[in-house]
Amino acid sequence: MNYSVIRWLVGWVLCIEAAFLLIPLALCLGYGEPYAVDYLIAIAIAAVPGVLMARRRPKNMAFYAREGFVATALSWIVLSLAGAMPFYISRCVPRFVDALFEVISGFTTTGASILSDVEAMPRSLLFWRSFTHWLGGMGVLVFLLALLPMTGGQSILIMRAESPGPSVGKLMPRLRRTAVTLYGIYLGMTLLEVVFLLFGGLDLFSAFCVSFGTAGTGGFGILNDSFASYSAYIQIVVTVFMFAFGVNFNFYFFLLIRKLRAAFSMEEVRGYLFIFLAAFALVAVNLMTQGGMDPGGALLHAAFQCSSIMTTTGFSSVDFDLWPTFSKTVLICLMFVGACAGSTGGGIKVSRILMYFKNIGAELKRLIHPRSVPVARLDGKALDKAMVGSVNMWLLAYIAVFFGSMLLVSFDNFDFTTNFSAVAATLNNIGPGLNLVGPSRNFGDYSAFSKLVLMFDMLAGRLKIFPMLLLLRPATWRK
Amino acid sequence: MNYSVIRWLVGWVLCIEAAFLLIPLALCLGYGEPYAVDYLIAIAIAAVPGVLMARRRPKNMAFYAREGFVATALSWIVLSLAGAMPFYISRCVPRFVDALFEVISGFTTTGASILSDVEAMPRSLLFWRSFTHWLGGMGVLVFLLALLPMTGGQSILIMRAESPGPSVGKLMPRLRRTAVTLYGIYLGMTLLEVVFLLFGGLDLFSAFCVSFGTAGTGGFGILNDSFASYSAYIQIVVTVFMFAFGVNFNFYFFLLIRKLRAAFSMEEVRGYLFIFLAAFALVAVNLMTQGGMDPGGALLHAAFQCSSIMTTTGFSSVDFDLWPTFSKTVLICLMFVGACAGSTGGGIKVSRILMYFKNIGAELKRLIHPRSVPVARLDGKALDKAMVGSVNMWLLAYIAVFFGSMLLVSFDNFDFTTNFSAVAATLNNIGPGLNLVGPSRNFGDYSAFSKLVLMFDMLAGRLKIFPMLLLLRPATWRK
Repeated sequence: MNYSVIRWLVGWVLCIEAAFLLIPLALCLGYGEPYAVDYLIAIAIAAVPGVLMARRRPKNMAFYAREGFVATALSWIVLSLAGAMPFYISRCVPRFVDALFEVISGFTTTGASILSDVEAMPRSLLFWRSFTHWLGGMGVLVFLLALLPMTGGQSILIMRAESPGPSVGKLMPRLRRTAVTLYGIYLGMTLLEVVFLLFGGLDLFSAFCVSFGTAGTGGFGILNDSFASYSAYIQIVVTVFMFAFGVNFNFYFFLLIRKLRAAFSMEEVRGYLFIFLAAFALVAVNLMTQGGMDPGGALLHAAFQCSSIMTTTGFSSVDFDLWPTFSKTVLICLMFVGACAGSTGGGIKVSRILMYFKNIGAELKRLIHPRSVPVARLDGKALDKAMVGSVNMWLLAYIAVFFGSMLLVSFDNFDFTTNFSAVAATLNNIGPGLNLVGPSRNFGDYSAFSKLVLMFDMLAGRLKIFPMLLLLRPATWRK
Repeated sequence: MNYSVIRWLVGWVLCIEAAFLLIPLALCLGYGEPYAVDYLIAIAIAAVPGVLMARRRPKNMAFYAREGFVATALSWIVLSLAGAMPFYISRCVPRFVDALFEVISGFTTTGASILSDVEAMPRSLLFWRSFTHWLGGMGVLVFLLALLPMTGGQSILIMRAESPGPSVGKLMPRLRRTAVTLYGIYLGMTLLEVVFLLFGGLDLFSAFCVSFGTAGTGGFGILNDSFASYSAYIQIVVTVFMFAFGVNFNFYFFLLIRKLRAAFSMEEVRGYLFIFLAAFALVAVNLMTQGGMDPGGALLHAAFQCSSIMTTTGFSSVDFDLWPTFSKTVLICLMFVGACAGSTGGGIKVSRILMYFKNIGAELKRLIHPRSVPVARLDGKALDKAMVGSVNMWLLAYIAVFFGSMLLVSFDNFDFTTNFSAVAATLNNIGPGLNLVGPSRNFGDYSAFSKLVLMFDMLAGRLKIFPMLLLLRPATWRK
């Protein structure tokens, strides 16, 4: 293991975070909040070790898969430890484990909160909280790649470990340009949402916070009732943008270079749209019949909630924990399906789901005609055995982490639905679950131990499981 | 598709069932119950079409994978339709869907019941109900193979489709002798349990019914409180025998031919024992601490319940739905793990679980050393790609059926825990779940539609998913 290159990268991550912390500091001063010194301490805590670690460029830049996984996992942990400081030092969140939970939930774009009264928080901290979604959505190390002078062949390993989705886009030959283009699309769409929200009457602060939460498919709101008290216009705008941020970014890239045919023939995007529409229709009809909701409200809330849960954002326009069981079960299925690969959303991802179903179909064919070799295809290309094997292995690891976590959090003696949905909501980076962790509740009641388990799940969900599992494996650390 | 050979096989299945129905008819006459005519009608309903279909041996005996799957799935469905008749015709179960549910639950060795008052049933029907467990446990078609003069190369296809577990034992060169030996071990162990139970004070009728439920890992009891009112001796005997029937039968075969080394080095059996002991210890300690149970009761009930759930039997010595969440979560995990392949138990099976974990381990190694090709091994043999692919495909289909069923039964608007555990308990062939389908409740409250879904799940769980999925696939039926 090349420890010095990992040290160097983690140092850079801390330096960047210290720089970003200047924004809430400025807001704090602007709003006249009494936390300026706390921010300065937090910045120092990130910057001093950051500068010390990043100052000396390592002589040996050798960087392999192992270093890529470890650097990514450690960066996210260190990022979260430093990012929790403003909450903890300002005493706005008195317990460190809670501050850490909140920030990990932010960076991983989960949106699960331990706060029971969001509106009591200072605005600068609310901004930082939402901003972690925006940073975490596209990936912090990808941002680093857009800045750092690294040779391409090595940094693809980081991008692979951090970028959401099974395959990293081979859109452009040069990785650095890919990173810059991705962040460009991301920033442009975020600003577009801000404009739409301003048009709907939100102030600039709220518009930015909401847009950060949408863009990162995060889910932190700035009101205690999440989205219930916003106007229908705002709810519709956010429904559309949540859906848009759940689309594979390759789609927008194709649009940008005017390859319309390539864009609209992407099977994953079509599958994503189809699953969303099917879920929306089922939930809307169910809300009108079993739920007794009027058609207008049923359509609005079904669309908002399906978009929010499928993209793993987690905003709530209504307490869906009170919905009929069928609607809740559809939402739970959407929790696992998740958004497109190559989007900021979490979950299993539509492309993996498509591969799984196509593989089942191929297997059924093969069973009946044992001598034939049916091949599943995605976007016209045959799914090779290595790809199929790797998405299956990912699923096995995902299931193992899921059940392991369920067991560990069950010591708190909450009911099964709460625990199941809490693990589903964190491992899929959604936010709210059902029952005691439903939209009108929060994760604050869990013990510190369970919170640690759920933090692990949030990080594992965001980093495609394996980097976090590798951290726990002694053999990873051997020379 | 060779329909005539399927017709012929299904006819034989009906004939055999008609013959077996003579046993409860005899009991009915012996106990002086007023249902003799009902039994005779039921026997006629099975025998008349059975004889008509089996009378003419088809000229074309060509039999391929497709015919194997379809014949197996159809046989089990026809078997259940005919087996439900005594319940329905006698009006002991007034609705046909309930009678069918009860019998499918019997043949698939699930043990989920729609009866709220078991003790009110006539004894001859209770015997038939428990006897379906015994027949279904080892497989009805395997029994047929032991009788019918078929050529070996074809019947292996049936045995593969019906026999529980990922791989059918290649214990003996000749299939027919394998079937006879399996049934011999099965019968011997069942009779041994009967003797132990008689020694504990049970009457002959009860001893047989309980032994049938244990041997098939079924779970139908003959008392309303399942096992709660039996003595500790009986509970311990049943704990041991449930565990024994969850062991891979290859183990007993090795013992029989005195290959002790081969028997005790079977990784699956060791894994099975290890998982059982770990679950038992965790639950026992949890019951003593969080559950406030005395040590004696905690050890007894933890052992009984872990053995019952892991082997997918489903007897209950206590209402475990009232246990602390951690213990319940351990039981839910055991529901999915299941027993050994090649036993009468259901679930995912220990050998698949071992393969999954070994594959995750190999994947972690591969990620760190991308150029190495780590190979997972079971019983010293490398798991080849075809095997790994096939157990993964099985898991994908299993998950798809699981979530699809959850969605369909959720229309009844029961809570999430009830639906989740109902599907888990039927697809894994266990019996009781949690909440509304907990040990002190039954499946009677579900709508007819949900019962049909759960019946499908019981059959799918028993027949390794694919035969039932193939029935639903139009291409299966094309010439």
